Amino acid sequence: MKFCSSCGHEVSLTVPSGDNRPRYVCAHCETIHYQNPNVVAGVIAEYEDRILLCKRAINPQIGKWTLPAGFLENRETVMQGAAREAMEEANAELADMQLFSVISIPHISQVYMMYRAQLVDGKASAGPESEDVGLYAEADIPWDEIAFPVVVESLKLYYEDIKNGGFRVHYGDIVKHDDMRLEVKRY
Amino acid sequence: MKFCSSCGHEVSLTVPSGDNRPRYVCAHCETIHYQNPNVVAGVIAEYEDRILLCKRAINPQIGKWTLPAGFLENRETVMQGAAREAMEEANAELADMQLFSVISIPHISQVYMMYRAQLVDGKASAGPESEDVGLYAEADIPWDEIAFPVVVESLKLYYEDIKNGGFRVHYGDIVKHDDMRLEVKRY
Repeated sequence: MKFCSSCGHEVSLTVPSGDNRPRYVCAHCETIHYQNPNVVAGVIAEYEDRILLCKRAINPQIGKWTLPAGFLENRETVMQGAAREAMEEANAELADMQLFSVISIPHISQVYMMYRAQLVDGKASAGPESEDVGLYAEADIPWDEIAFPVVVESLKLYYEDIKNGGFRVHYGDIVKHDDMRLEVKRY
Repeated sequence: MKFCSSCGHEVSLTVPSGDNRPRYVCAHCETIHYQNPNVVAGVIAEYEDRILLCKRAINPQIGKWTLPAGFLENRETVMQGAAREAMEEANAELADMQLFSVISIPHISQVYMMYRAQLVDGKASAGPESEDVGLYAEADIPWDEIAFPVVVESLKLYYEDIKNGGFRVHYGDIVKHDDMRLEVKRY
């Protein structure tokens, strides 16, 4: 951020009075421009013993497989966001949506919120951001071609719940250390 | 938003190619400025049979009571955000934090994520954004002086869980209808 989005003057990074961290502040119109994490809403959509994966047609991680997920939009609920992403990326209609996981990824300032849902009639097809979509049984999940660590973690939690005989709401963090190593924390 | 924060030229509200909703777009440097919901992280901090409430020293709802909560900051986890808010607003140290509720409020583009935690040593005092803090038993909660509907709903869920003999992760929405009526949805 270089310019004030309200008045167009240059901003500077400074700690506002009464605050405890630097913000982009406009000296001209006195607007403080806060920047905050984004929510990513997604879904594990089930049909019989298989789940829906999408092959990414866009970067980052073009050609890799992922769960339908994307940035929550203003004026929608997290559940609506997850359903919208399933429709946009896989033309997938969902039923019986249940919150499944909440995972903070602080180094990219994102909070992933995944639902679990039924894929209506098992029907899905590639939307504009997907090269392909598919229904995968656990044994066929392309673990080495999954786009993002948070998707790997979500799928692990899902299959662990199945083995344990029931679903619950999971929460945790994926933290990047100074040596670039990712640590998955579960609570 | 009137001006591009990257280059300072005027922006216009237009649907970018490949998108399906209006965004602020800069015709000069071609930056698309996305605006997305904020996460509010907060906590129900317990000490014996009482919970911590804060009397707001700032607007909105100055003088009303609330749970410690505030906007999640970049590069922090939701749990860290909730702990930070408890410290900032009530000098409260927390232990044993557990995710309690996730409530979307689409008309203000916010997602509230409340934890439940132990208030260490039962110690709390007013931070700069609080006029007062207090530990309240259920019978003494000032229900008519609670700052926000999402706080009322969080407290209701909490006392319902206590009556039901156990806590779980709740999720739902608070939706504002055209006639201004608020509807609480639980899933």
